Amino acid sequence: MFAYLSLVPNSFGKIFTVTTWGESHGPAVGVVIDGCPPRLPLTEAEVQAELGRRRPGQSEITTTRREPDRVEFLSGIFEGRTTGHPLAMLVRNTDAQPAAYAEMREKFRPSHADFTHEAKYGIRDHRGGGRSSARETIGRVAAGAVAGKILRLAANVEVRAYVTRVHHVAAPALDHFPTLAEIEATPVRCPHPETAARMIERIQQARAEGDSVGGVIDCRVRGLPAGLGEPVFDRLEADLAKAMLSLPATKGFEIGSGFSGTLLKGSQHNDAFVPREGRVRTATNNSGGVQGGISNGEEIFFRVAFKPTATIHQPQATVDIHGVATELRAAGRHDPCVLPRAVVMVEAMAALVLVDHWMRHAAQNQTFKF
Amino acid sequence: MFAYLSLVPNSFGKIFTVTTWGESHGPAVGVVIDGCPPRLPLTEAEVQAELGRRRPGQSEITTTRREPDRVEFLSGIFEGRTTGHPLAMLVRNTDAQPAAYAEMREKFRPSHADFTHEAKYGIRDHRGGGRSSARETIGRVAAGAVAGKILRLAANVEVRAYVTRVHHVAAPALDHFPTLAEIEATPVRCPHPETAARMIERIQQARAEGDSVGGVIDCRVRGLPAGLGEPVFDRLEADLAKAMLSLPATKGFEIGSGFSGTLLKGSQHNDAFVPREGRVRTATNNSGGVQGGISNGEEIFFRVAFKPTATIHQPQATVDIHGVATELRAAGRHDPCVLPRAVVMVEAMAALVLVDHWMRHAAQNQTFKF
Amino acid sequence: MFAYLSLVPNSFGKIFTVTTWGESHGPAVGVVIDGCPPRLPLTEAEVQAELGRRRPGQSEITTTRREPDRVEFLSGIFEGRTTGHPLAMLVRNTDAQPAAYAEMREKFRPSHADFTHEAKYGIRDHRGGGRSSARETIGRVAAGAVAGKILRLAANVEVRAYVTRVHHVAAPALDHFPTLAEIEATPVRCPHPETAARMIERIQQARAEGDSVGGVIDCRVRGLPAGLGEPVFDRLEADLAKAMLSLPATKGFEIGSGFSGTLLKGSQHNDAFVPREGRVRTATNNSGGVQGGISNGEEIFFRVAFKPTATIHQPQATVDIHGVATELRAAGRHDPCVLPRAVVMVEAMAALVLVDHWMRHAAQNQTFKF
Amino acid sequence: MFAYLSLVPNSFGKIFTVTTWGESHGPAVGVVIDGCPPRLPLTEAEVQAELGRRRPGQSEITTTRREPDRVEFLSGIFEGRTTGHPLAMLVRNTDAQPAAYAEMREKFRPSHADFTHEAKYGIRDHRGGGRSSARETIGRVAAGAVAGKILRLAANVEVRAYVTRVHHVAAPALDHFPTLAEIEATPVRCPHPETAARMIERIQQARAEGDSVGGVIDCRVRGLPAGLGEPVFDRLEADLAKAMLSLPATKGFEIGSGFSGTLLKGSQHNDAFVPREGRVRTATNNSGGVQGGISNGEEIFFRVAFKPTATIHQPQATVDIHGVATELRAAGRHDPCVLPRAVVMVEAMAALVLVDHWMRHAAQNQTFKF
Repeated sequence: MFAYLSLVPNSFGKIFTVTTWGESHGPAVGVVIDGCPPRLPLTEAEVQAELGRRRPGQSEITTTRREPDRVEFLSGIFEGRTTGHPLAMLVRNTDAQPAAYAEMREKFRPSHADFTHEAKYGIRDHRGGGRSSARETIGRVAAGAVAGKILRLAANVEVRAYVTRVHHVAAPALDHFPTLAEIEATPVRCPHPETAARMIERIQQARAEGDSVGGVIDCRVRGLPAGLGEPVFDRLEADLAKAMLSLPATKGFEIGSGFSGTLLKGSQHNDAFVPREGRVRTATNNSGGVQGGISNGEEIFFRVAFKPTATIHQPQATVDIHGVATELRAAGRHDPCVLPRAVVMVEAMAALVLVDHWMRHAAQNQTFKF
Repeated sequence: MFAYLSLVPNSFGKIFTVTTWGESHGPAVGVVIDGCPPRLPLTEAEVQAELGRRRPGQSEITTTRREPDRVEFLSGIFEGRTTGHPLAMLVRNTDAQPAAYAEMREKFRPSHADFTHEAKYGIRDHRGGGRSSARETIGRVAAGAVAGKILRLAANVEVRAYVTRVHHVAAPALDHFPTLAEIEATPVRCPHPETAARMIERIQQARAEGDSVGGVIDCRVRGLPAGLGEPVFDRLEADLAKAMLSLPATKGFEIGSGFSGTLLKGSQHNDAFVPREGRVRTATNNSGGVQGGISNGEEIFFRVAFKPTATIHQPQATVDIHGVATELRAAGRHDPCVLPRAVVMVEAMAALVLVDHWMRHAAQNQTFKF
Repeated sequence: MFAYLSLVPNSFGKIFTVTTWGESHGPAVGVVIDGCPPRLPLTEAEVQAELGRRRPGQSEITTTRREPDRVEFLSGIFEGRTTGHPLAMLVRNTDAQPAAYAEMREKFRPSHADFTHEAKYGIRDHRGGGRSSARETIGRVAAGAVAGKILRLAANVEVRAYVTRVHHVAAPALDHFPTLAEIEATPVRCPHPETAARMIERIQQARAEGDSVGGVIDCRVRGLPAGLGEPVFDRLEADLAKAMLSLPATKGFEIGSGFSGTLLKGSQHNDAFVPREGRVRTATNNSGGVQGGISNGEEIFFRVAFKPTATIHQPQATVDIHGVATELRAAGRHDPCVLPRAVVMVEAMAALVLVDHWMRHAAQNQTFKF
Repeated sequence: MFAYLSLVPNSFGKIFTVTTWGESHGPAVGVVIDGCPPRLPLTEAEVQAELGRRRPGQSEITTTRREPDRVEFLSGIFEGRTTGHPLAMLVRNTDAQPAAYAEMREKFRPSHADFTHEAKYGIRDHRGGGRSSARETIGRVAAGAVAGKILRLAANVEVRAYVTRVHHVAAPALDHFPTLAEIEATPVRCPHPETAARMIERIQQARAEGDSVGGVIDCRVRGLPAGLGEPVFDRLEADLAKAMLSLPATKGFEIGSGFSGTLLKGSQHNDAFVPREGRVRTATNNSGGVQGGISNGEEIFFRVAFKPTATIHQPQATVDIHGVATELRAAGRHDPCVLPRAVVMVEAMAALVLVDHWMRHAAQNQTFKF
């Protein structure tokens, strides 16, 4: 009675194309990268490192699900280098607890994807959210690790995301491009230590209440040359917005001055051009590094809003699959705040957007001579 | 010395695919729609009506450029109905004033796309922003008119955008789905008359100062059934975010509770399911009508931030194409505030996203019987 | 009752993407090229030259429809060079004779697309075949002219097609890569003058009988370096086969040794590698310049079968739109043999395939340094 | 020094999208299907059955490589039915003999993809052809099994391929649509038993000589309604041609009357329409079931030419990776004639093309009501 027209909705990117597959409680999750350049040195350990940052159970403020998330390369590598052919990566699911989800077979969890999956497909793997589980992002993070390496090696581009607000606890503006060490110094991934401590406290309090909190992640990119992005539909900020809103639990995106820039006048908001270091620079960066959809050589920065985790340990009013009002009691394991682990996902998605545009850009500067 | 890898960056949509072409001061602008269903009754007048809403020179708060923007159907129509073949539409440019842009041949306008175009392509039609002119959106609005008609006719879906803030002048929350007449009642397209009057005043003040202002547009969609959107990359909110950030002058997007939802706890933010009118509804709508990337049958609502117009009538510091610091004096014709006309573009892009997902959805409910 | 899911079936090419639009008896036909590199010098006259070769009414063996087929550039050109933005081209229809097609509104022409259009869309522009008219190929030939220029200028690649058989009249094997002048020397576009004369005679005889004939076109490409094409689905020969079978009236495609190669043993068919001129060459070329889907630096050659024109001047048994047996008497103007004009279409489609793969190839040799 | 722009060359299909990955001597090969409709009952055994037909070592006329080719479903299945999410399938390589390919690290095998891979990527997995091995088609056959099931279940469409010629041994024309049993009755998959016996003899003779042979496969499709395919680029025959020419060792494709149809006159070739069984039929079928790119409800039939296997057991002149003339002696395991196993690949690729067009078609007849 139901059918499905998908049009590769599990793929992302036009040149460096990533296809993820897998469910929370199926045998495995994984990803295929088509379009990875050949001869890139690459080891499983490099991908494993990023998966380790995303991994559940890594600290006291994340879910208690314990998964080693060990990646296996299945193709596309020969003697330690990529071949230019599809790079397939596999991660087995090991700590699945389907029994914990028995109640969800019949009842829709509020603000989860249970009801919409049922409405769309007429069939639903209810265990742990199935395809809509955050485990799907393992494939994105694995692919993002490869994209990030290409950006660093070929282009000296660095992507760095970090938590700037958890619920009402906000960090002061950062006066420098943070190091990875500063971000990884605390499990909450906020590079301002005092704020980080208060954020952790806030998350632990939410967990104690059986509740959850959301917040804001900032992302900055340095080293990007001018010329990436397209002037009409495939603007760099448009592709970044799509990438970010494709992550679970996201509700907003802004680049450069964002929503607060709408309170400035044009004469205040415009970024004057100045000659500096032998090239065209801007005096300010309200544009967030993008003008007319194309990078201008300044730092890219954008901000992503994450809602509080939908899974909470409190009884909730809901409806069952027969349309009858009921109460949901069970919960399943979850993060009381997704932001610390989402930092890794934001970086991965940003790297996927940037490597795709970078590959177009790199090509375009050296080929045709008219 | 320069080349170009584009990958259809001038096309949008996977089923109802829209390709725009044309520059501000070239002979014409236009659009080709591939994937329009056959047998749809369609006249040039229906498209013309939407172009009239987008048209420059329609009121005292828009640019003084005078363009009739008369659309001509070139293909895809037979005896008043679409044929299922490409629908090509053409609008000639008539009031081009290339001389007004002579200064821009040499100087980069701050916060415009002049510099980034030069960096990307090594060639640039400097007249009126060329391809990055807002005239490019004529094709989008024409296509959006067709998409909007399909949504109304086939699905009873309505898309309505309106201005909710100009600079610091904000409208109170609207307690109903506004009619087109309410929105069109004032040239600023804010359905709250008192606020509209203050917004117009604010825009006229900015013009008098040779300055510009930005603001926020809200968009609401009603009538959409549950089941549109995909769970991973092609989430409905992700495609809407991309569509909005692909419009000129946009800096932010949020859906449902957006950035302010991050200040709630999960127990406050979750939308409880309730049985109502024989179907599954939600008690609140912090989700903005989308859960797990898929519509849940509630009203869709989202918000878009527009920066103040980059073109201002004040001298500005900049750099010329030789990298030398200089001052920009000329300006060209422009809107002191883009929002009133951008309302039509927001509706058009929303309609393009929704018709594309609607066509997938409509297909999927009636085809395969397993 | 009918709907339509198209998925850009009017577009061709992944980087150099061509979208054609227009019907035989609508206002115009045209094409949009997205992905043309910037800074390419280009004039309307260059495109016009190829359209002149494709034009109806150019000789006594083609249709009597008289169309100047004058092309107008609408966008994407600035001061005589491409800008990297969409290149839109328009050709107005002038010699439409819709009345000649009145009978086709009710009756399906045998071996034409009338019946299948009706079955697919539930609406049909019956005048001159509508979208299935060979006039659709104007857009392809215009785009092919641009593609061909890029190949010559940037890559020194030449594409040359010519007629090798008309009905039973076959030309002897050609011992050299023919010049354009040799091909254009006769209206039948066979570079062997004696055979050309007999082919023309054969076509005139078919016309006199109110009948039609088909035949075979050969196409050769020289100058292509090794490395174009992909090893799995996007093999160079696979893309060429699709391109050729997408032309009206085509029934077969073979590359290199083709069908007759199946009569050889592996020891006879294999192309031994030999070092020559400082690079790896092959002693023979049964592969037709492609091995494992990728060009090997030898000449590409392939062959295309065209059926006899479906339009004939004899009464034919058929069925009308009500399913009743009837006789078709009218015919409309047509070519008694499509091959002479199809030569230009074969060259255009080959150029479109090659420029797309060339752009991928050119990029790949100069970008990443691992 | 080398890079790579791919644009998903390892994916096929616009709705039912198949991505294959894996090399001959890597850990595994596999496939991801995106766009499979939900609720389709599907077991590993059904896919295994088709893999068994494709499997090496199944008879005395195929390669001696012994692979069980056991498929594992990794995602997209819940309680025996598809979920609408990506269906990932994995087959481990077990009988890899990399040592047998040591010579190929340095020497290019004639008429193989070794040289072109080296030219394209600058890196090459030389073991068993790497990505260009026929093992890549395991993913295609697995996906084709799913496509074939959808066609049978949802549309009652049957696809049947069989061998009609091996070298000079040709089968007489078949007067009926053959059953699977007739085709599987002999290891050569020719449904004419006497010819099959002579074909097997011919193949064994070639093997004894250390040589190889090619031939022709016919494919027929019945049950397809009118209306599948698109009138311009995505013609059904164009997509079939691409699919077939994307298979290893193919050199030609023809549909309906094919190359021999060019020897007929239009009055002989045209398929007269006749009313029969309450619908519009044709008296003959020179069109091969496709008119103007769209199916007309008659049987589809086409023919594919396969060259003799490039691997032979005779010394061959070649060039090494340093460009020096040399002799190749080793061979690796192979089929002396690829056709018997290629029958399964032809069916799989045909099913992939047809299910993709079928899904568009099925959708279009039931959605929009204009």
